[in-house]
Amino acid sequence: MTDDTDRPVIRLKPKANARAIRHGAPWVYDNELVTDRRTKKIAAGSIATLEDAGREVIGTVAVTPGSRIFARILDRDPNAQIDADWLRDKLQAALAHRERLFAAPFYRLIHAEADGLPGVIIDRFGDTAVVQPNAAWADALLDQLTEALVDVTGVTTVLKNASGRARQLEGLDAENAVLRGAAPDAPVHVPMNGATYLADLTGGQKTGLFYDQRPNHAFAAGLSKDARVLDVFSHVGGFSLAALAGGASSAVAVDGSAAALALAEGGADAMGASDRFDTRKGDAFDVLTALNEEGAQFGVVICDPPAFAPSKKALEPGLRAYERIARLAAPLVVPGGYLGLCSCSHAATIDKFRNASIRGIGRAERNSQLIHTGFAGADHPMHPQLAESGYLKSLFFRILP
Amino acid sequence: MTDDTDRPVIRLKPKANARAIRHGAPWVYDNELVTDRRTKKIAAGSIATLEDAGREVIGTVAVTPGSRIFARILDRDPNAQIDADWLRDKLQAALAHRERLFAAPFYRLIHAEADGLPGVIIDRFGDTAVVQPNAAWADALLDQLTEALVDVTGVTTVLKNASGRARQLEGLDAENAVLRGAAPDAPVHVPMNGATYLADLTGGQKTGLFYDQRPNHAFAAGLSKDARVLDVFSHVGGFSLAALAGGASSAVAVDGSAAALALAEGGADAMGASDRFDTRKGDAFDVLTALNEEGAQFGVVICDPPAFAPSKKALEPGLRAYERIARLAAPLVVPGGYLGLCSCSHAATIDKFRNASIRGIGRAERNSQLIHTGFAGADHPMHPQLAESGYLKSLFFRILP
Repeated sequence: MTDDTDRPVIRLKPKANARAIRHGAPWVYDNELVTDRRTKKIAAGSIATLEDAGREVIGTVAVTPGSRIFARILDRDPNAQIDADWLRDKLQAALAHRERLFAAPFYRLIHAEADGLPGVIIDRFGDTAVVQPNAAWADALLDQLTEALVDVTGVTTVLKNASGRARQLEGLDAENAVLRGAAPDAPVHVPMNGATYLADLTGGQKTGLFYDQRPNHAFAAGLSKDARVLDVFSHVGGFSLAALAGGASSAVAVDGSAAALALAEGGADAMGASDRFDTRKGDAFDVLTALNEEGAQFGVVICDPPAFAPSKKALEPGLRAYERIARLAAPLVVPGGYLGLCSCSHAATIDKFRNASIRGIGRAERNSQLIHTGFAGADHPMHPQLAESGYLKSLFFRILP
Repeated sequence: MTDDTDRPVIRLKPKANARAIRHGAPWVYDNELVTDRRTKKIAAGSIATLEDAGREVIGTVAVTPGSRIFARILDRDPNAQIDADWLRDKLQAALAHRERLFAAPFYRLIHAEADGLPGVIIDRFGDTAVVQPNAAWADALLDQLTEALVDVTGVTTVLKNASGRARQLEGLDAENAVLRGAAPDAPVHVPMNGATYLADLTGGQKTGLFYDQRPNHAFAAGLSKDARVLDVFSHVGGFSLAALAGGASSAVAVDGSAAALALAEGGADAMGASDRFDTRKGDAFDVLTALNEEGAQFGVVICDPPAFAPSKKALEPGLRAYERIARLAAPLVVPGGYLGLCSCSHAATIDKFRNASIRGIGRAERNSQLIHTGFAGADHPMHPQLAESGYLKSLFFRILP
């Protein structure tokens, strides 16, 4: 069987695991492929045909020569046309799922490999979509992707966010852009779990708001009625505004970013909850230490730090940082209250993160029970072959009387 | 430091890990203790003082000589009086948590070690509580426990359920009993996730209804609007009745027990949803095979089998059974629909269970994305030192178009 298009062909080495790829593995690494002068000359982002070592066709792939992930599987059909229609089908399938999950159009619409668009992230904020084309093929097809996105969802504004670290590995620029419509001139109001968040889609971190913690925000909100709540590493108020929506008597957001705290305050204001909301700008470790010295006590404390263990090399110091957070946070919880601890580190498995958290609570000489383990929301699906790499973990402990 | 009461004293061997016990390990195994004629003569269920090898007191324990778990830590205070007051404190702490979690008094009130009452399970069904005193100390103190339970919760009926397997290991009888009030003469109506379940508290499996799947039922219900739902190993209709409450167009419950299906029908009737509900009695593997032959299709399929891998020895055949369930169930899901797969096997870790499920879906030649991983509800807390043994796992996949 040969390819009847003009596409380049790339071929697995005999030692490569063709069976795994045929059974769903989404990536082909550079060391699994026969690379010669011809393959190295393929333009990054090209659509190609993948063959096994015996020249049997496997499927349609996107290639980035020079990247460790040399090829990404796009379609099992070797003759698939990767065009606006093909993109529309993927977007439509993804949209049907989100429309079943959520009453309002605020969600992650495309979560890369799991949604069939490798390296592509799309977050939707009502009529505005923010696209992260973090793989060369998607950057090359950005016009068609934008067209399909507008067709399928009806969004009127499409923004390109080029801040993803992966773009460098793919040889792509770091230029944000307005692909359709006009960039919003004010933060967008995002309804989630009964709270209102402000998302700065042009100036904020990544896509301005993270949807991944939605179910964990909801769990925290369910614990927060009439409680004083402390939200450490709050960003734009993820846990604290949800807690206010859940009836918290007060909430304090702690973050190092004045811009993030200003958005959190804007959200509390939009909810009519400013009188129950306070912020504290500063290094989270410093603020936790100061609160301990002040003898502060809260019914619910949640810590949602940035990735302390972003790589395997950073795992041990990262786990020590998670332990330290737990040790500093546990004494701030009233007896019978709740402590939520989160990790977004790929390298820290759920077992390792849980053990670090339990060690920290133990070092604070508190007894606890683990009441809940949560992950990213259902609009952040995982590809079955990449399911062990789920990055977000959220543990809720009750500190015993 | 010596014990000033009449309590027996048991002592760790020098090689035992006293530090781990001081840091919260809840159990002391028989091979960690100095056992002589005296210790072997201690009556099962006795309260004793635990010392380390250097005769430093560690705390108050309950002992069952002859059991592998020889001693259970009850209190870090070596002079703690284990009486109705002490039990009341534990029950009160547990109740406060459940009252925060749930609007109605239907929940697991005591989940053994994590709630500070080792070996004790108490489920609450409104005015009725079902106690499983699965450790000798709790059986010996059953009168005080009943008294404290009535005081703290106001329940008017207390039933003893003696069917737990652990009771044999503790040398306890298998006699159910009415400890307070009168046994209900009809199934109790249990509101959960907007559905109504019927719990047969005197004739059913274990405590007649399992509360542990509540959050996973809720997740399934959120996927089920206008969908046809198949609930395999339904017991009294856990997933199917929740799906009907969530707006399913129809639900079919499959179980081998006619009694369980009759209760499920009673629940659907109480919800006014009988016209959308059907049952199919039979072996689940047979019914799944038959449904495949019929070409049946459902928007949501959930399989919640009994523990296929109840022990480490049974792990491999158990995992093959989970894989087979996934392989038989996946083709019954419409493209774009959902497949929920559950395991209540201690021995099958989340990684192993997920891999078995993914293999089964792959063998059915379906592509999928993993959208949700859930565990037991927050009224089933885990002791931090036993947290790796969480038994219940629930995986939701979307079968891709």
